[in-house]
Amino acid sequence: MEYLVMLPGPTNVPNRVMNAMLAPIINHRGDDFRQLYRSLVEKIKMTFQTQNDVILLTTSGTGAVEASVVNLIKKGDKAIVPVCGEFGSRLADLIDSWGGKAIRVTAPYGENPQYDKIEEVLDQNKDTKAIYAVYNETSTGTTIRYMDKIGQLCSSHGAFFVADAVSILGGDELPVDKWNIDICVTASQKGLAAPPGISPISISDRAKKYILSNPPSILYLNLKRYFKYYEDSFETPFTPALSLFYAFNEALDIVLEEGLDKRIGRHRTCAEAFYSGLNALGLPPFAVEEARSNVVIAAKYIDGMDDKKFRTLLAKDFRVLIAGGFGELKGKVFRIGSMGEVNKYHVTRTLASIISAMNMLGLKVNSEAASNAFEKISGIA
Amino acid sequence: MEYLVMLPGPTNVPNRVMNAMLAPIINHRGDDFRQLYRSLVEKIKMTFQTQNDVILLTTSGTGAVEASVVNLIKKGDKAIVPVCGEFGSRLADLIDSWGGKAIRVTAPYGENPQYDKIEEVLDQNKDTKAIYAVYNETSTGTTIRYMDKIGQLCSSHGAFFVADAVSILGGDELPVDKWNIDICVTASQKGLAAPPGISPISISDRAKKYILSNPPSILYLNLKRYFKYYEDSFETPFTPALSLFYAFNEALDIVLEEGLDKRIGRHRTCAEAFYSGLNALGLPPFAVEEARSNVVIAAKYIDGMDDKKFRTLLAKDFRVLIAGGFGELKGKVFRIGSMGEVNKYHVTRTLASIISAMNMLGLKVNSEAASNAFEKISGIA
Repeated sequence: MEYLVMLPGPTNVPNRVMNAMLAPIINHRGDDFRQLYRSLVEKIKMTFQTQNDVILLTTSGTGAVEASVVNLIKKGDKAIVPVCGEFGSRLADLIDSWGGKAIRVTAPYGENPQYDKIEEVLDQNKDTKAIYAVYNETSTGTTIRYMDKIGQLCSSHGAFFVADAVSILGGDELPVDKWNIDICVTASQKGLAAPPGISPISISDRAKKYILSNPPSILYLNLKRYFKYYEDSFETPFTPALSLFYAFNEALDIVLEEGLDKRIGRHRTCAEAFYSGLNALGLPPFAVEEARSNVVIAAKYIDGMDDKKFRTLLAKDFRVLIAGGFGELKGKVFRIGSMGEVNKYHVTRTLASIISAMNMLGLKVNSEAASNAFEKISGIA
Repeated sequence: MEYLVMLPGPTNVPNRVMNAMLAPIINHRGDDFRQLYRSLVEKIKMTFQTQNDVILLTTSGTGAVEASVVNLIKKGDKAIVPVCGEFGSRLADLIDSWGGKAIRVTAPYGENPQYDKIEEVLDQNKDTKAIYAVYNETSTGTTIRYMDKIGQLCSSHGAFFVADAVSILGGDELPVDKWNIDICVTASQKGLAAPPGISPISISDRAKKYILSNPPSILYLNLKRYFKYYEDSFETPFTPALSLFYAFNEALDIVLEEGLDKRIGRHRTCAEAFYSGLNALGLPPFAVEEARSNVVIAAKYIDGMDDKKFRTLLAKDFRVLIAGGFGELKGKVFRIGSMGEVNKYHVTRTLASIISAMNMLGLKVNSEAASNAFEKISGIA
């Protein structure tokens, strides 16, 4: 029996998308590929809600996040980074190790940094080159709910706005142009429900102009090279992962057929069902309410729930995959990816398996509360 | 009708390998993945004929080539690079732009630099840190035939030996340990006949020790990170392209089932058939005889053969894909990838299509010579 993949990426991939990988190999320097690439770029632009250029990298999301740093940040450049989890922290470290100066605006894990603090820090550092924000912090299940305000702030200060939307595009609002995002990074295997290995980046004209005149001393993640091939011939400079391009194209068709609004609504409904269901089981969400993610549900372990035992039971006996905690949250939380194809049956199957695994671990579950939760969930679309 | 893909990568992928991509998505932080990764690493070690560690990147071959530079070369480090084509040239440029000092040992395109010159340059630069050699130069269809001697030379001088074997592994000799190769880089979509997107690197203990103590200020291609995850838990630090890992695993099974010697023999036979067939058609090989590649056949255009018209005819009317020239050879040569699954029917179909396309372009072909060539080819296994 196949796993139900409730990881915060990779996620369940529809058969239509898997089968698209069987398309025969073509010349990546020929018209067949150009057509495929063009079609992909158009669809991602619609998904990003942007008129900006979009480039596709054959990397995991980290590759694209790194590209957003090494193509923009030069020695000594200041970049403000809200940090409230592992991915924000890693991004700030990357900026530092590349020679920039990351200014961290922190918050306790499970919360978002206060917007006012970001504004304040920018006022104190008017020469800030960019604000880098991890829109959805997968390690804690939190989402920054003032991305639009950061965008306005950057615009008014002439700073670049870079968004790491790796784990969220397709599962929550992300109007790139409306929010003034100069560089937006995502990946194929999360909210877009394709296999992992492709990472798109959208780049505003202003960022592009800067990048073209200041290329970094690297090759594979050098965006100037991608622009050159993109504009000369609509190709990629290096051999693309063709089979994954086909799959991603099909996955984006599914996204656009459903429609962004409907898709985001479905994610919201499923996330709410998870939060109320887990609460009913006595497993409280890790994040404070106003910062809770629509796509990654982090919940706290209670006494007697051993991370390894619990997740092994879920995987081995119920074929349900969920993730553990990351970094300092290891063993303290578990995380459910509620993304991509997620629907109410994914929610009920995951929750039912969690209840049974808890019972197997000798933990009592309030059956009335659980029953109420399921009743509520069964009422959703 | 599917294309016959006679490109110098990507190449024809057997159905068995394509179908392997349909394996369901798994947790890349779980035992299923560890088992897959371990199995892949063991098989690549056998293919590289090495006891060294092997790491897999989710990138094109260029990503792995860049990893071999940015993890080893520090500011001011000297590296000797034989240059006789675009890929050697690009490698030398990359070393320079990363802060190293590439010392180019050149030869006219179509020839190999003389081995003695390399030895001489190393004698004049005893502080050379590494020799970087593109084993098979895809842009010109030439192969360096003294890799073993470079390996000995490096050993005796304490320099690292780095081999770019992207386009050749699986199609020609490459005993990594016997040739003292410290870092050997290849890719999935060439001689190993898998889809593009994965690039393995083998790293000797000596190189590993150096790399672990001197990590570069980058993330996605940082080999120290890969080693950490590899040794802690047999995982990759960043989400791997799972579907491509499955395909590559199947492709390596095919390589090992056939056996390396038999596979290399098959490549040699097909390359010889191509060279003699093209000669018979009046299309002389570009490379001098002693440098000719077993996997990429480059031949010169004759008067009246327009690159674009010729290759478009082949693709549109015969469904056969071949490549044009690269860089300064654009329009002057065409290139046939004779790799991976290549067999005598690939050779005859390609040559027959070339003859017909030449006729369509109004070019005469010596039919007696062609007939003799086919007769010879029909006799091969």
